[in-house]
Amino acid sequence: MTMKDKKEILALNAFALESADLSTFEDNLAELLRRREQIFGSLSVLFYQRPLHIVSARGCSILAADGTRYLDFYNNVPSVGHCHPRVTKAVCDQIQRLNINTRYLYRILNDYAEKLLSLFPPELSNLVLTCTGSESNDLALRIVRYFTKGEGFIVSSNAYHGNTAAVTEVSPASYRQGSLPRYVRTVPPPDPLYYGSDVGKGFAEAVAAEIQDLQQAGIPFAGLLVDTIFSSDGVYVDPPGFLQAAVDVVHEAGGLWIADEVQPGFGRTGTMWGFERHGVVPDLVTLGKAMGNGFPMAGIVTRPEYLRAFSEHFGYFNTFAGNPVAAAAGLAVLEVIEEEGLVENASWLGTKLRSWIQDLSTHYPVIGGVRGAGLYLGIDIVDPKDGRPDVRRATRIINALCEEKQILIGATGSLGHILKIRPPLCLQSPEAELFAEALEDVCRALL
Amino acid sequence: MTMKDKKEILALNAFALESADLSTFEDNLAELLRRREQIFGSLSVLFYQRPLHIVSARGCSILAADGTRYLDFYNNVPSVGHCHPRVTKAVCDQIQRLNINTRYLYRILNDYAEKLLSLFPPELSNLVLTCTGSESNDLALRIVRYFTKGEGFIVSSNAYHGNTAAVTEVSPASYRQGSLPRYVRTVPPPDPLYYGSDVGKGFAEAVAAEIQDLQQAGIPFAGLLVDTIFSSDGVYVDPPGFLQAAVDVVHEAGGLWIADEVQPGFGRTGTMWGFERHGVVPDLVTLGKAMGNGFPMAGIVTRPEYLRAFSEHFGYFNTFAGNPVAAAAGLAVLEVIEEEGLVENASWLGTKLRSWIQDLSTHYPVIGGVRGAGLYLGIDIVDPKDGRPDVRRATRIINALCEEKQILIGATGSLGHILKIRPPLCLQSPEAELFAEALEDVCRALL
Repeated sequence: MTMKDKKEILALNAFALESADLSTFEDNLAELLRRREQIFGSLSVLFYQRPLHIVSARGCSILAADGTRYLDFYNNVPSVGHCHPRVTKAVCDQIQRLNINTRYLYRILNDYAEKLLSLFPPELSNLVLTCTGSESNDLALRIVRYFTKGEGFIVSSNAYHGNTAAVTEVSPASYRQGSLPRYVRTVPPPDPLYYGSDVGKGFAEAVAAEIQDLQQAGIPFAGLLVDTIFSSDGVYVDPPGFLQAAVDVVHEAGGLWIADEVQPGFGRTGTMWGFERHGVVPDLVTLGKAMGNGFPMAGIVTRPEYLRAFSEHFGYFNTFAGNPVAAAAGLAVLEVIEEEGLVENASWLGTKLRSWIQDLSTHYPVIGGVRGAGLYLGIDIVDPKDGRPDVRRATRIINALCEEKQILIGATGSLGHILKIRPPLCLQSPEAELFAEALEDVCRALL
Repeated sequence: MTMKDKKEILALNAFALESADLSTFEDNLAELLRRREQIFGSLSVLFYQRPLHIVSARGCSILAADGTRYLDFYNNVPSVGHCHPRVTKAVCDQIQRLNINTRYLYRILNDYAEKLLSLFPPELSNLVLTCTGSESNDLALRIVRYFTKGEGFIVSSNAYHGNTAAVTEVSPASYRQGSLPRYVRTVPPPDPLYYGSDVGKGFAEAVAAEIQDLQQAGIPFAGLLVDTIFSSDGVYVDPPGFLQAAVDVVHEAGGLWIADEVQPGFGRTGTMWGFERHGVVPDLVTLGKAMGNGFPMAGIVTRPEYLRAFSEHFGYFNTFAGNPVAAAAGLAVLEVIEEEGLVENASWLGTKLRSWIQDLSTHYPVIGGVRGAGLYLGIDIVDPKDGRPDVRRATRIINALCEEKQILIGATGSLGHILKIRPPLCLQSPEAELFAEALEDVCRALL
């Protein structure tokens, strides 16, 4: 894929503010957009061909300024539901009492951290708190590099792990020009298209080949960094356990495996952590997004010896991380997930939704297939004539669902032709049905 | 200074959990400390020889679990006062209504951003929002490198700019082992000790020499990154305007100047921004800490052309940044600063406090001098016999102020012998007097 292609795909998937004709929007929206461009300039990104002006949200429901109510099938940060009253109450109670940093002791941080760690295998007994998934992955890369004394990392070919300088280097999806540094190697995502029927074996062989190539180039190997559901590659989760062989290869070569759980973590895939699906305990787990249901917080769960090795080299302190308000938010999120049975809900409702879409695909050839686990699904949109990826039709579906059906979804994959379905975990069965019906209507119109 | 020295200084200035004898503390505190070590392991850092267990805070006052009330002369994040009711109300109102990301439009973000930008020179018309000062500096380094096509950065010799991989490379204060990469050069802080009476000229010459050295090494120059009050170097602010000559040198060499306002920004130094003291408009300004009074938020203010150059290379999106709750917090902070006259308060009360400490220094030779602007002061603690930096006495003063006087301060500078005085900006005159008296008592006991 050339950079020109990549830019075209970006333009299709995001609202390109700089080149937009604002006169096609009513005054209010045009004014907001003009102000937005003036303030944020080139780094402004908005969703949909007609961007949404939002005023409030609750559960899976989003209210726009014009009174339209949207069903949210996209946002995985407010994962237990937009503005969940239990989480917002925890934040409000705590922020009025104490908001300080971790160089002081306060009980709620210990309480939260212990509850969080109790959800991990016992060997992952240490926690580092940060503010964002990017900070978590940035620090995880450093910890692995200092522990292994390696430099080379392997990631999937359309990986996205965050936005710092170091993390962008392992995020091919962020590049609009230029190429990855020589110590970063990519392997195709775990898609039978690349690896045939035995994805696990093929993926492990691809990882082994890149390790060998790094070594031949004189670059000591550090580790493998993958999001356990390969979300930006297009959602690849099957067969369960396929990552095991690759992780074995990584360990044999002296490397470590960072499981990026920023997206799959906290119940999204129908298990608490995405790595559970693979039956392998990661060396480091990075967390973010859903962790505070929108309160900015993130972290790393790992083994004490890795932190010890790192701390010989550098001090690490993170001003906002682990503050008592974040701890209160995080604790409330864990309690809500448990008490409302959201992991189970993601599992059974996700399975149901996937089977409905599977059924649709037999009637509507524009749906090339559906993949996923729990409430994270990827739906391939293809040209009905030849079955090839069809980003234009995907874009039409996304915008039609938004404008005609008031349902919000997004796109993923290196070509941008895969619908990304990722509702809050409190989704209910009638809402899932509504989505399936809406998708059918929109696909019918595309026939 | 060797690494062994550096480790000793760290051990004096922070509570070393791993090597502590917990049996000296009462049960409650020992239990909290044991849990803390188990959870956070090697990356745990705590203040004071007897760490504080805190339950609440308000204004400049912090309440410990044992009922002791402390006067906070250290925390610059809750800058308009701990748990300021106006800020917490803004957060609580907004977080119950909408908390989403910037790919949607919501009015409060525009309102906040416009108010913030109105406080900058008009050429700095674009804003990028991030979550932490580290993320801001990380992105600022990238923007400058892509715009200038340079790589080399110059920082002060004990600079601290944050905790990501890229920002640690320009933060010599974070290194416990090893050395900076060859594309990062340091200059001594703007102290007459190094540059004689014309600090501005000397500092500019040092910068020029490093630019030349980078060029001779074949490393294209990118820019200068300095905190405008050189806080981690030991607080160097005088004479006003001394940075001008260095910035001219940077521009002549085709580089850009990043003003790190994470600490000096938002009124701390008695002007809204630290760079105002120098009468130079920066190319990029990085913000953090006080921006949301503890709600995690940060940003970059800069010129549109720099963002445009960067966006040709990379996409940038930050999940939590610019969410409506952050915007509400940030807006309330700006309103409180304005309505409570906190910039003016920092200026006049800081001047008063500085002159009291200046007076003390004539009676107590352990006080080698006092520097600073607004409510950010550095007090040199020296050996009364020979006037040399005395980190042990500084540590005794810090812990005595905490345990005997219930006043919280910290240490700064590469040797850790400089008392760091940085109370919330709502500090009142009687509290400042209390501090001066307490410092006198503690210094008297050291005679």
